[in-house]
Amino acid sequence: MRSTMMDAPLQVARILEHGVTVHGTAEVVTWTGAGPRRMSYAEVGRTAARLAHALRDECGVTGDERVATFMWNNTEHLVAYFAVPSMGAVLHTLNIRLFPDQVTYIANHAQDRVVLVDSTLIPLLARVLGELTTVRHVVVVGGGDPGPLRAVAGDLVTFHHWDDLLAGRPEHYDWPEVDERDAAALCYTSGTTGHPKGVAYSHRSIYLHSLQVCLPEGFGLGPGDRELAIVPMFHAMSWGLPYAAFLSGASLIMPDRFLQAEPIAEMIAAERPTLAGAVPTIWNDLLAHLDAHDVDTSSLKEVIVGGSACPPALMHAFAERHGIEVIHAWGMTEMSPLGSVSRAPAGVTGDDAWRYRYTQGRVPAGVAARIVGPLGEPLPADGASVGELEVRGPWVTARYVGDDAPDPEKFRDGWLRTGDVGTLSPDGFITLTDRAKDVIKSGGEWISSVELENALMAHPDVQEACVVGVPDQRWGERPLATVVVREGASTSVEQLRAFLAGSVAHWQLPERWAVIDAVPRTSVGKFDKKVVRSRYAAGDLEVRELAGP
Amino acid sequence: MRSTMMDAPLQVARILEHGVTVHGTAEVVTWTGAGPRRMSYAEVGRTAARLAHALRDECGVTGDERVATFMWNNTEHLVAYFAVPSMGAVLHTLNIRLFPDQVTYIANHAQDRVVLVDSTLIPLLARVLGELTTVRHVVVVGGGDPGPLRAVAGDLVTFHHWDDLLAGRPEHYDWPEVDERDAAALCYTSGTTGHPKGVAYSHRSIYLHSLQVCLPEGFGLGPGDRELAIVPMFHAMSWGLPYAAFLSGASLIMPDRFLQAEPIAEMIAAERPTLAGAVPTIWNDLLAHLDAHDVDTSSLKEVIVGGSACPPALMHAFAERHGIEVIHAWGMTEMSPLGSVSRAPAGVTGDDAWRYRYTQGRVPAGVAARIVGPLGEPLPADGASVGELEVRGPWVTARYVGDDAPDPEKFRDGWLRTGDVGTLSPDGFITLTDRAKDVIKSGGEWISSVELENALMAHPDVQEACVVGVPDQRWGERPLATVVVREGASTSVEQLRAFLAGSVAHWQLPERWAVIDAVPRTSVGKFDKKVVRSRYAAGDLEVRELAGP
Repeated sequence: MRSTMMDAPLQVARILEHGVTVHGTAEVVTWTGAGPRRMSYAEVGRTAARLAHALRDECGVTGDERVATFMWNNTEHLVAYFAVPSMGAVLHTLNIRLFPDQVTYIANHAQDRVVLVDSTLIPLLARVLGELTTVRHVVVVGGGDPGPLRAVAGDLVTFHHWDDLLAGRPEHYDWPEVDERDAAALCYTSGTTGHPKGVAYSHRSIYLHSLQVCLPEGFGLGPGDRELAIVPMFHAMSWGLPYAAFLSGASLIMPDRFLQAEPIAEMIAAERPTLAGAVPTIWNDLLAHLDAHDVDTSSLKEVIVGGSACPPALMHAFAERHGIEVIHAWGMTEMSPLGSVSRAPAGVTGDDAWRYRYTQGRVPAGVAARIVGPLGEPLPADGASVGELEVRGPWVTARYVGDDAPDPEKFRDGWLRTGDVGTLSPDGFITLTDRAKDVIKSGGEWISSVELENALMAHPDVQEACVVGVPDQRWGERPLATVVVREGASTSVEQLRAFLAGSVAHWQLPERWAVIDAVPRTSVGKFDKKVVRSRYAAGDLEVRELAGP
Repeated sequence: MRSTMMDAPLQVARILEHGVTVHGTAEVVTWTGAGPRRMSYAEVGRTAARLAHALRDECGVTGDERVATFMWNNTEHLVAYFAVPSMGAVLHTLNIRLFPDQVTYIANHAQDRVVLVDSTLIPLLARVLGELTTVRHVVVVGGGDPGPLRAVAGDLVTFHHWDDLLAGRPEHYDWPEVDERDAAALCYTSGTTGHPKGVAYSHRSIYLHSLQVCLPEGFGLGPGDRELAIVPMFHAMSWGLPYAAFLSGASLIMPDRFLQAEPIAEMIAAERPTLAGAVPTIWNDLLAHLDAHDVDTSSLKEVIVGGSACPPALMHAFAERHGIEVIHAWGMTEMSPLGSVSRAPAGVTGDDAWRYRYTQGRVPAGVAARIVGPLGEPLPADGASVGELEVRGPWVTARYVGDDAPDPEKFRDGWLRTGDVGTLSPDGFITLTDRAKDVIKSGGEWISSVELENALMAHPDVQEACVVGVPDQRWGERPLATVVVREGASTSVEQLRAFLAGSVAHWQLPERWAVIDAVPRTSVGKFDKKVVRSRYAAGDLEVRELAGP
């Protein structure tokens, strides 16, 4: 039986129209280093219409052509977030922090026709513009000189200044009705291997994701809120905050290029955000600044931390020293990005609440999650069974841009393989412990390298420990424990193995051990397990073999 | 460009699964008159699976067959709300308050195959069961004797007891994937003329509507909330509260048949709801009770009033005497039903806030609204132009069940004609003043009968006034003012006309006047304008003609 309901598509233009009318007096504030710039949502709507007219009439954007941004978080970027998808084109947020050849690959792969660039980023774009084969128009935002860009651009590229381009154009645009499953925005994710992979968000996925962001279980955005959106608009759509703000009526505070602790603290004191979102590094820096200076942060109820795991110490420090609740969230570019938000269940308080809040959090209604074992078999959601986390839902990607079929390394039976390993509790809390590639697959069972490392590092004589999987004739893979012994201490690997036996299952105990001088690290300071494995393979480690399982 | 996102349908089963797992410890509480009954959402999930197995295996429900409920708000009704749509069948909530021939028409029109009936409602169902031509199974909930039903039912009807029917069945059901545009639930609306009309909600519309209900701009439901759902589950899906509760983790408190002020007050004191929803009559009765008794209502933050316009006096009384915020909401069965919620814009306080709160409220992002004039022409959303309100959106019906095409009396160019007349402000606030049928269409302009009545009743000598449109040779229609003069007062219609001229436009001034003894009223106490018009047509009124426009 067909329903009698209207077939009204979910589309970005509806979010824009809602924000512009119902929340027309909400505002976007952009930090400039010399006083903030302000624009009401009503004016954002008029500016978006002018940009759409300009893109269509001056840049010849038609159909689903891609309009790229190479920009900080600011008012004009927000205007592009709405104008481009609303007119039926596709917004492509280029990540300004990637290597030049990655940016080139991505822009060419997406066939970007127009690039909007902040004038402060002209030098960075100039490194790649000459290689961008499909770009025909560059729009410079702000008063910068496009000279360095002209110097490298081919003859086919026309340059515009934002203000001139928009001047005098109509403040109304008849946003077309779109198919809600059509692409609205593109974002590429740069894995550690191979080319970056593109995800094409639909109008539908953006709309549903924005609703979820606004829910009390999500970020709980409402008309009275002011959201400090530090998370870059070129990272997974800034967690959907720009769209969620127009949907909910929350105002937006944008840091532009002022991402250091001092200006962020100034923004908080001056613009009084109620909520803020950023990666742990930003919050770490801010914490040190707040500890050392007298900053009025009384407006801030919650800060959302995502992008990488949130250290519990950071959560406690903000709560105890500054009265700010740090909420841990987890997601992926492939998930729009919201995967889970870690709020303790209703009525749970004290240490019990903290235990929940350390986890990655609970999946929202729109996301289904499961844990699967080494052979892809679903495991129980019992909070104990360890496996790879897989997700699906209307704002999860089914494949990457340009792929005819889902890559089986990344997708399985209609589920996205997150590459993260952990547990799922009966009440939907995700606890992630390892990246799948760092898990040791031993005879059909999985051993968490991180768990072994933590257990080893609990020994007073161990300074640090790094555990990797190495090939094993009988079990396929077995753990190799590499240990740095604390200066002046004298412990043996036999003693360490006996110590470990007190906290992990017998079959998980490593039989291969090596005492080393230091754990090799990546450029960002993480354990470099690739190097440890290759040193072992090359016979460069002095390995002791003890009894096996 | 197609997006790469998964094609995951929005369906009721996903809401159920979310509530059962993530919010498995939330609970539904049903009032019994002898202590509440409680069931966790996890148990509701298991019971829904058992009901689905029973409906399929014992009642032969397949495909999209209709399963009707003839029930109060209680746990078993909630179980049916989830089990029936989740298994792919269609839930049909029969309104127990309709006349028997309306119930018969509706159940036969919908081709209901199964009826679930509360045993306390057996006598009511017995009045119609003999006429229900498609019903094959009746399931009695509670320990009542189905004798009166057996006495009237045909040979083809089998009777079951809920407990026996569900006993021993599996607590898991593989909910099928559905097309999100398929019908999930049916509700009929009984207009004043013609047969009742059916609206078939889709899985998609229910899902989107539930998200909206949970938003801070909607009812703001979160995991810590306890929602007292007084609005009947047979009225427009109880405003979507059952689904919104499972989506958000709010617990539900159900009054069953105990809808009087005293048990409602007991429920509030005992079960400590944070939110409640009901029609103004319920709140009026409760207010009188709270004024006269010492009841602990400290848990209640907000009560939502909808179903008919909320008198400002009621809002003030709850706020000032009991510290409870009354939120005015507007909707229609045709709108799932949420149309607007009246919260003052952020930062607006005091009398300014009250002026917003008296209105019908703001449309959510999912609903587009417009005001159209007598010829269907769109009027500006300027807060002044008066016209009929039209709406559209993904949870608004496009036609009625069984109609091949939209009825032009009710739909226009893809919009639902609400039949309500009023204004729309630039920031989305709806103010409704008249039903379209009570508006006077005078020479292409509309005159609000309610506005004239209010202006007349402001005169100290007028006890009440009823204004209706009557045929006019020149203008098509003109207002007739009928006035009841206060006991002992002596005012003339000329004086009243002069008084009116001080507050309404000259061209709106009635030329026809009649002093009457009392305004005729309907059975529910509203002005019966039909009777006034027919008395005028029959020449039964002593009409004075004054100067026209």
